[in-house]
Amino acid sequence: MKKVLFATTALIATAGMAAADVKISGYGRFGLDYNDANDRAVNGISKTTITSRLRLQFDMSTETDSGVAFGARFRAQAESRDNTPGGATFNGARFFVGYQGISVYVGNIIGAIENTPGMYLETRTAGTGIDGAGFVSLVSNVNGEYFNWDAYSSAGAGANGVEVLYSTGGFTGHISYSTDNGPTNVDRVAGMVSYKFGDWRVAVSAQSSDIAWEDKVVASVSGNIGNFGVRLAYADNDGIGKFGLYGNMDIGSASNILVWVTDEDAVSAADVANGRNDNRDGVAGSNNQEGTSYGIHYHYDLGGGASFETGYRKASNDNDTFQAGVYFSF
Amino acid sequence: MKKVLFATTALIATAGMAAADVKISGYGRFGLDYNDANDRAVNGISKTTITSRLRLQFDMSTETDSGVAFGARFRAQAESRDNTPGGATFNGARFFVGYQGISVYVGNIIGAIENTPGMYLETRTAGTGIDGAGFVSLVSNVNGEYFNWDAYSSAGAGANGVEVLYSTGGFTGHISYSTDNGPTNVDRVAGMVSYKFGDWRVAVSAQSSDIAWEDKVVASVSGNIGNFGVRLAYADNDGIGKFGLYGNMDIGSASNILVWVTDEDAVSAADVANGRNDNRDGVAGSNNQEGTSYGIHYHYDLGGGASFETGYRKASNDNDTFQAGVYFSF
Amino acid sequence: MKKVLFATTALIATAGMAAADVKISGYGRFGLDYNDANDRAVNGISKTTITSRLRLQFDMSTETDSGVAFGARFRAQAESRDNTPGGATFNGARFFVGYQGISVYVGNIIGAIENTPGMYLETRTAGTGIDGAGFVSLVSNVNGEYFNWDAYSSAGAGANGVEVLYSTGGFTGHISYSTDNGPTNVDRVAGMVSYKFGDWRVAVSAQSSDIAWEDKVVASVSGNIGNFGVRLAYADNDGIGKFGLYGNMDIGSASNILVWVTDEDAVSAADVANGRNDNRDGVAGSNNQEGTSYGIHYHYDLGGGASFETGYRKASNDNDTFQAGVYFSF
Repeated sequence: MKKVLFATTALIATAGMAAADVKISGYGRFGLDYNDANDRAVNGISKTTITSRLRLQFDMSTETDSGVAFGARFRAQAESRDNTPGGATFNGARFFVGYQGISVYVGNIIGAIENTPGMYLETRTAGTGIDGAGFVSLVSNVNGEYFNWDAYSSAGAGANGVEVLYSTGGFTGHISYSTDNGPTNVDRVAGMVSYKFGDWRVAVSAQSSDIAWEDKVVASVSGNIGNFGVRLAYADNDGIGKFGLYGNMDIGSASNILVWVTDEDAVSAADVANGRNDNRDGVAGSNNQEGTSYGIHYHYDLGGGASFETGYRKASNDNDTFQAGVYFSF
Repeated sequence: MKKVLFATTALIATAGMAAADVKISGYGRFGLDYNDANDRAVNGISKTTITSRLRLQFDMSTETDSGVAFGARFRAQAESRDNTPGGATFNGARFFVGYQGISVYVGNIIGAIENTPGMYLETRTAGTGIDGAGFVSLVSNVNGEYFNWDAYSSAGAGANGVEVLYSTGGFTGHISYSTDNGPTNVDRVAGMVSYKFGDWRVAVSAQSSDIAWEDKVVASVSGNIGNFGVRLAYADNDGIGKFGLYGNMDIGSASNILVWVTDEDAVSAADVANGRNDNRDGVAGSNNQEGTSYGIHYHYDLGGGASFETGYRKASNDNDTFQAGVYFSF
Repeated sequence: MKKVLFATTALIATAGMAAADVKISGYGRFGLDYNDANDRAVNGISKTTITSRLRLQFDMSTETDSGVAFGARFRAQAESRDNTPGGATFNGARFFVGYQGISVYVGNIIGAIENTPGMYLETRTAGTGIDGAGFVSLVSNVNGEYFNWDAYSSAGAGANGVEVLYSTGGFTGHISYSTDNGPTNVDRVAGMVSYKFGDWRVAVSAQSSDIAWEDKVVASVSGNIGNFGVRLAYADNDGIGKFGLYGNMDIGSASNILVWVTDEDAVSAADVANGRNDNRDGVAGSNNQEGTSYGIHYHYDLGGGASFETGYRKASNDNDTFQAGVYFSF
């Protein structure tokens, strides 16, 4: 009595179906994570643990008689990090309306900063290794201030905002807005523009937030030179500058190797005096991330949507992680 | 590797499938909600917020060799009201057994009051506007006592009851029962009968509950006169009478406009002396809903299962809401 | 706009689909549970309550070019026991890699003890009645120590372990391992071997755990003699021996009747002196399960994946349960 959903571009066309569809997709990834910040004797967590994620995604869509597209996305995602496994609930819903090049998203929005081309790594995990390894590689993540912008939440309710995207030719523009309830209603406004010409793309984005230290500007240039992909990114994170240089290369038909290095400014004494956090791990002054982080990632395509992924990275605070595992999409 | 589920009455027939099925359906709706009860300076919520819901529903069914139908329903539903977004879990399961005109439901039951024809508005949202606007239009919702009957819960566990429905010709009968654990086990018993003749339908239902002020009787008459739909409803909510008059009219091929007005009795002094709540918003005596509420709703069909929905209502406590948005089913 | 997923071995073959699939399956079961441990006047729960479960399962799978299978499983399951209904979230994910006879599972693993053939009853519910009736019939469940081994969790995160299974001919071997975080990291290691020859199967499994009283050895012999199925099982649960004898018989083409009896040793005085729990229900010494439990279960196939299930069991602590209901898979 098993039911099977199948990949069916062909079948849909032949069958002449109604406009309204539900697509089910997702991915699984699992492997081992060596993290020298863990120590069974110190924090109870082995240095090497299972890291895993299973994502199940439902995309609903329909189209009106006049060609306006309506849709929504729902995601359930279970993870294990540091040997702490969990189940999953559906995240906050994202809705969209699209007509020709214009799309409006409502609810659990993408966010203009999050959508900046050339910010995440060119890997299946968008970071180093099998689970991203903390996404130290992003120029928008700095000391004590990680992921402090509106971004689609896979496991939570998200920003509950509104955003407009416009694409034409190689150009994409994106403006996003969200606000919180409460006595000190917090607004976040962000914008992004990117342009693709030939094998190259440039992008600039900025966020203005009512929360301290969240204003930021991100810029990137990326392109391909034959088998080589190169990218330069920079962000001014409310006074903390961070540069990133990224390169990847295809090896044969199934392999890709990627290397990256970032350099991050110190938190200024003036900012610390104004209450800015100058550490990432909870002890004031103990762990300033000023300086150089770097990593290397290797991908091997196994066919059928599956691949082997492995990566090592050293953060500027000397934290080492090494991960290896498999990733498959469905 | 995307999977697509498609609308397939045709394919099912052709393919001659096994009896056991899983159907996936649902809807999305999102829009703006102006509510003058909100005020950023007072309760931290802007007067105008996003209101949204994404519902994903799984219906399982099979049929025995002797023609008895078995099935179950599961629903996951994410909402945002008053700028408070949420994710979703699956609700309590509802099971059914059906044979010819008789159906037995177990678990997260519908409830006989809830199932009364002519109680909810004739709109896609079953209320005014894009999220129902509090369902003031229901004669069974009165001052301080909203939704105090057994009803299918889309986001919770539900009543965990048992009910029997019987339909033959235009007649439908419905009896539901649930009980709670605990020292003061609470039973709710409800019954409903409705009869449809030509374009008209009459319905009467009643609930007897061990919880104070939950006994109620609901009655409705509804019908169509050409393009016009008319309806009269009344409920005696344990002493608080509420009348409702409803009318809707098709305009052209894609539009419908609906208006409604209700009139609610005051809470009697004797009931207040016996501890009955005489307000809806938490301050004793401050907000008695005695009097007239009214609303207007406009629907425009966009095709492909999508529509534009907008509505205004004024409750008897002077609360104004105006909503506009889109609704699409899949 | 309803979508239908259908049973499609045929369609998959014809359509020549991509390797990556999502299968949806599951079951519903509901019925009445008479349990003499409940008493509305004592614990607020009626002696007879609704017992129900709805399980919805997603199985994802793909295959690499070299024939290695990758996959994952996700399950959402809502239950009502003792008139306490609930909704459902997705459980912890289980991942697998398989190649020829070898399978590796990661995350919410099965567990080698759990996977021992001849441990659960030969019923659709794997226990007595419609919800298993506490699974007293398992020789691995003894006084105060139920389900104290690594096992796939349908509603929780599971063991977050790793396991390897190997099958060839009638032989299956299974080794599982999990560990917990925390100052007293708890390891559980278990192994199982089983061998099937003709109509007979033998199995032995053992668990070594860092938690007190969790070491155990389970053994079973099972087979068929015409229409009769017979089974003998034994477990040494860290000093508490428990025997089980099980027999079932087909009656006609649609019915099966099963009977079982178990005999459990007392908790030794030495163990109690060392802090071992000698009761099941929370009162020290009040409810030692030493002695004989027994049960009877009747199954009637209704066709279409549906069946009628009923069972009675008496536990050695004199707890009686009687259940009857329906079960259908999809």
